[in-house]
Formats: sequence, structure tokens, C-alpha cells
Amino acid sequence: MSWEYSRRVKYYETDRMGVVHHSNYLRLIEDARMEWLRDNLICYNELEKLGVIIPATSAFGNFLNYLRYDDPFRITIKLISFKGVKMRFSYQVINTETNEICYEGESSHFFAKDGDYKPYLSFRREFPELYNKMVSLIEN
Amino acid sequence: MSWEYSRRVKYYETDRMGVVHHSNYLRLIEDARMEWLRDNLICYNELEKLGVIIPATSAFGNFLNYLRYDDPFRITIKLISFKGVKMRFSYQVINTETNEICYEGESSHFFAKDGDYKPYLSFRREFPELYNKMVSLIEN
Amino acid sequence: MSWEYSRRVKYYETDRMGVVHHSNYLRLIEDARMEWLRDNLICYNELEKLGVIIPATSAFGNFLNYLRYDDPFRITIKLISFKGVKMRFSYQVINTETNEICYEGESSHFFAKDGDYKPYLSFRREFPELYNKMVSLIEN
Amino acid sequence: MSWEYSRRVKYYETDRMGVVHHSNYLRLIEDARMEWLRDNLICYNELEKLGVIIPATSAFGNFLNYLRYDDPFRITIKLISFKGVKMRFSYQVINTETNEICYEGESSHFFAKDGDYKPYLSFRREFPELYNKMVSLIEN
Repeated sequence: MSWEYSRRVKYYETDRMGVVHHSNYLRLIEDARMEWLRDNLICYNELEKLGVIIPATSAFGNFLNYLRYDDPFRITIKLISFKGVKMRFSYQVINTETNEICYEGESSHFFAKDGDYKPYLSFRREFPELYNKMVSLIEN
Repeated sequence: MSWEYSRRVKYYETDRMGVVHHSNYLRLIEDARMEWLRDNLICYNELEKLGVIIPATSAFGNFLNYLRYDDPFRITIKLISFKGVKMRFSYQVINTETNEICYEGESSHFFAKDGDYKPYLSFRREFPELYNKMVSLIEN
Repeated sequence: MSWEYSRRVKYYETDRMGVVHHSNYLRLIEDARMEWLRDNLICYNELEKLGVIIPATSAFGNFLNYLRYDDPFRITIKLISFKGVKMRFSYQVINTETNEICYEGESSHFFAKDGDYKPYLSFRREFPELYNKMVSLIEN
Repeated sequence: MSWEYSRRVKYYETDRMGVVHHSNYLRLIEDARMEWLRDNLICYNELEKLGVIIPATSAFGNFLNYLRYDDPFRITIKLISFKGVKMRFSYQVINTETNEICYEGESSHFFAKDGDYKPYLSFRREFPELYNKMVSLIEN
């Protein structure tokens, strides 16, 4: 069983259409990504204390079905590539009751030095354990 | 001069990194799209009163530079395709002071019947003026 | 032990000050209120299906300490009054690690007919079980 | 004519009830407060560059009428007290078309040193011009 994040849709995540506002899917997958980091690599908070942040460089996704208030959903997330400081994740947001895929997408990020937002070129050298763990987490 | 939307970054649009949270770019381009609709086709509010909505089917974009609190920005938007009920927009979010492109992306949508969220198959027949105006707004 | 809601602060709930944006406390206490309703009265979703909604009429609170990204917090909530269709809740948002009270406030609401947002005058007659359960939930 | 802030309701500011989510009124009045500061005292951004921030200590308000998507509204704001580093603002959010008051409230804040969030005790001594301007802006 692959790693999953799950919760229910909150009221303020819906818009007047009665469904999750499409912008919020980037927040839902961030929730999933942050918990994935905590469970598999390091709590993002601890990472920031080490002076490392993970900005997003791109995101794309398809809005396939609607999630409404209180719908239970699960998010599957996979690290599909990691090279140097660059990483790419893929996601599926699935309605747990209907098993409908509501969102399917990817996001790209990189390890950056806190403050300058530039690629953390010495990341591998300074944090070999985190680097190697990341490599071991790649799924295809 | 092509159509533009502009304003400044609001405080609550930033996150602890001190920059606009990447999810908010989907909100900024929605602001631009809604104003573009008002100026070029019809106010979205009026459209909903006609029983027509415009759900998003996909969005992708690159986060190229950061916008911080109070940064003035402009958004250029183009309708790059419209066929039947399906439409695609492209966007650039540009820091007005530095002229840096901060976000570059596209979103896909379709005309749907309010309530059932299904493609509004008779849209062209029922709203020929809106349909023809849309066709005339396509930019390549 | 009184009823509690707990989770951690999400990244996008913080602002450039690095703390939870004060507007989000109204969202945190809504999360708590919705879960309180589910556990003690009825899932808000089910209530809406009965044609009943619970608009907010007022809210006030003090921002006493800051919550930062990933801080664990718990929210205590009490129904402190319920008369006819009107209800008042009090809340404390507490940092679980430090036991600091970060937010202390109240909100007022009423049972309304979905669609007209007017007080649901026949609520007690139409939903005696919900009404009586509410009365029994009052804490002083 | 007293100072005013005005714009229209954005789509993502509404919830499934079809009206502005009540938590967003704290964001609308922040928008107004920030523009009021820019026009009357100093741009908040400039203030932060001086090492001064203005955290919120309390907020209360009544939700009197609903604002829906695209409704034009205006916000009147008054500095009703300022002593030392503490300030209190009152607000009215008014639907520009109907002149209905939708929200009426107050918020309290203080000048703090950026980083420590503690009252900026030497504010008056270090920034006499800002201090005196604030005093002159008090309305009763």
C-alpha cells in the first residue's frame, strides 16, 4: 500500500458553486506533500531550521470531478524524480466514498537556501543523509 | 495594447516565506479572467443568471519569480482557443515595477449548465451572440 | 474532559509574519464547530439536506499568542447559550506544546431556512429531537 | 466625506452558501486598513522596512447582511483611539448598490518591533512624525 493523506473537505474550501475551489487543490496537495515529508524524510519545519526550503517551480493538474463540503478524500503522492536539488511529485486526489479521481497532477520543486531562494547547490554535500533518503524514495 | 488586469499583492496572499503562496496564482488569474469576461463578453454574474457557469478542467503554470506584499503586478490574459464549449486561456503575471514575469500559465474551462456541470451542448444555439463574440476574441 | 478539536497549523494558514493570519482563527473555530456538531448533534451536511443552515451573526475574539507553521493546537468549544433558534459558542485555541492560549473568542449563530437565511421559526416544532439535544448541550 | 475603500467581491471569497465567508470580512477590513495606512500615514511595507509591524490583538463584528459574488462594496474605517502604541479601528462594510450595512466591527492593534512582536515602547521617541500623525487621525 502506497503512502496516503486523507481528511474531509472543509466548509471554507468550497465556493459558491458548492464545490472545492480549484485553487484549493494546490493547498490539498501541499498538505499531503508536507505530511509525506514528515513521514518519509523530515518535518518541513525542521528542514527550515536547517536553512533549507522547498519552493515550487511549477504545477499542473486536471480537475476531473468535484469534491463537496465534508466529502472524505485521500491523496496519493509519489516522488517521481529527484536530481541534484530538483524534485517532481505526482498526485491523485480521490473521493474516498465514490473512488472517483477528482484531481490528478504534478508539482516541481527544489531545495533552496532559506532567504535567497536559489538552488542549494551544496545540498548533497551538506545533507548526505537527506539526499540519499530522497533518492531512495523515488517511485516510477 | 492587449487587455490587462492589475492590482497590488494583499497581505493575506503571502505566506511565511514572505511571498505570494503559489496556490494564490490560480486566484489572481481567476480575478483577471473574471474581469476579462466582464470587459469583453459578459459579467460572470450575468452569465450565471442565464444558467451558464464556466468550470475549470485543468491548469498549469510555472512560478518564475516571487511577488511580495504590496508588489504591484499586471496580468495579461489571452483566449488562445475556443471550440464548441471548450476554451483555453494563457496568462502572464508580471511585477509592474521590475517587469519580471512571476507566473506564466494556462487554464482550460468549458461552458456548463449551472447545476449539472455538464458541457452546455446547446450553448452555441441558445447563445449565438456570446458564442460568436467568444470566437472573435481568440488570439494566437 | 470537555470536547476538543485538534490538528496542526498548515503552511498556507501563515502569513509573511510567519504566524497564522488572524482571519484564519475564524476558520479554525469553524473547523472545531463543524466537528462538534458532527459529534454532538448532527453532521452539518445532513443538516443542510434537511434545509437548515447555521449562519454566523457575530464573532469576537482576542489574539493572545501566535501559532506558527506546524504548531499543534487544540480547540475547546462550548455552547454557552441556545434560545429558540439562536446559539452562542465560546472557544479557546491552545498551543498543545506550550499550553499558551492563542485565541479566545465567541461566535453567535442561528438556525435558518436554507435559501432565505431567515430565522427558522418552526425549528423547534419541526426538529424537536435536534432542538432538545441542543438544549442538553448547553454548558455554563 | 470620510475615507473609503471599495471594490467588488471576488469569486473565491464566497462559500457554498453563495455569500462572502464570514472569515473573509477580517480580510476585507485588512485591505481597507492597509490602504488607509498608505493614504494617511505610511505604506505598511515601508513601515516594516523601519522594523515596525502592527499585529492585531482583537477583532469583533456583526454580520448583518450578505455580500455575494461581484457585489460592489465600500468600507468606511475610522481610527477611534490611539494611545502610546495601541490603536483601535472601527469599520462598516456597505453594499454600494443597496446601501445595506453588511458588516460592522472593530479591531485593535499595536505598534510592535518586527521579530519580537512586543509593544514598540520607544515608538513615539523614534518615530515622532508617525506618532503625531496618528494622533491627528483620531476620529470620534
